[in-house]
Amino acid sequence: MADEVILLDYWPSLFGVRTRIALEEKNKKFVYREQDLCNKSALLLEMNPVHKKIPVLIHNGKPVCESLIQVEYIDETWPGENPLLPSDPYQRAKARFWGDFINKMLPGLGKLMWGTKGEEQEEGKKEFIEMLKTVESELGDKTYFGGETFGYVDIALIGFYGWFDAFEKYGNFSIEAECPKIIAWAKRCVKRYSVAKSLPDSKKITELVPELKKKKGIK
Amino acid sequence: MADEVILLDYWPSLFGVRTRIALEEKNKKFVYREQDLCNKSALLLEMNPVHKKIPVLIHNGKPVCESLIQVEYIDETWPGENPLLPSDPYQRAKARFWGDFINKMLPGLGKLMWGTKGEEQEEGKKEFIEMLKTVESELGDKTYFGGETFGYVDIALIGFYGWFDAFEKYGNFSIEAECPKIIAWAKRCVKRYSVAKSLPDSKKITELVPELKKKKGIK
Repeated sequence: MADEVILLDYWPSLFGVRTRIALEEKNKKFVYREQDLCNKSALLLEMNPVHKKIPVLIHNGKPVCESLIQVEYIDETWPGENPLLPSDPYQRAKARFWGDFINKMLPGLGKLMWGTKGEEQEEGKKEFIEMLKTVESELGDKTYFGGETFGYVDIALIGFYGWFDAFEKYGNFSIEAECPKIIAWAKRCVKRYSVAKSLPDSKKITELVPELKKKKGIK
Repeated sequence: MADEVILLDYWPSLFGVRTRIALEEKNKKFVYREQDLCNKSALLLEMNPVHKKIPVLIHNGKPVCESLIQVEYIDETWPGENPLLPSDPYQRAKARFWGDFINKMLPGLGKLMWGTKGEEQEEGKKEFIEMLKTVESELGDKTYFGGETFGYVDIALIGFYGWFDAFEKYGNFSIEAECPKIIAWAKRCVKRYSVAKSLPDSKKITELVPELKKKKGIK
């Protein structure tokens, strides 16, 4: 049987982009199905009944949920081309640690983007910058997080990059001034076909934010 | 070189117990080093500079942080005895999904145990029960989460079991009345040597709670 790979996703998602990149790294053709999150499809509710969230990767009819779990699944299912996780257990544990750490940046980003103006937003910005500096010190002067090879941790973080302009605009700060090595790394990542093809347009995201704020009832 | 395995831990930790069980499942001897979390050791700060939290697994001098990452590391490093994760990528992804889901129960439990009395505590209790029912429906009538084999998801959840009495006492409810299958499963798990040896005493934990509340400044 030929592989049938479907991705239920929403174009600005910083999670969905991770899965798109992982599939591109494996040269895996997939059917992309844009989801309306205000009116969730029966397929989405059936495939992710627990969280009811995108992205959902459906491989031969079976759903895999949570973006970093999808990235590991993709790597284990199609191991040949461009390994995304290192083969050494210790290096794998390190990669998972940083993937988890990057996921832990989300509450801060949530406050920065959707929190009440003033104190809460400032707190979110502070949290985000502090954590991004920690991630930057892990990157150091390496090309990618895993050294010379683009992989799991790069995928975990680059998903945020399409949102950087929006973070900067709404937080009124410069990520490059705070974390220049992260910006240099992101520019290297974008040179990869998988990333360039998958990342949503920053400008479109920044334009979308007022609409999302309105939907969330944020002034 | 003989393996040197050290675990920096704190006896009531619902995370540390996961790692202890995984090591026992592999019949792996380790040196247990109790940590004083009010006065963190130089070793803990050196080995987990990012989170400064227990448990930290130190294998031949190299630290692995975050309990579920430690469980995967243990399984990959000593794969022979009692595999903890399934070998099939899809089943592995499912196990990781439920491990992640169980970790997501913590904010609710935090509110239940350490939140302000009344509304916040009730909200935490409600969240916890709802999520535990979801976990119970995944378990269904199986012996363990993975079927007949004790593994990763069992380890993720059984870590909470030592705290069940405390949750019930401070939340004023019965987990068995809400989720009878979970209690039956937990009793099966406790029959395993690895779990019986590693789980902290429920009574001691319940007695410890007023002291922890005092330390946290909660009335």
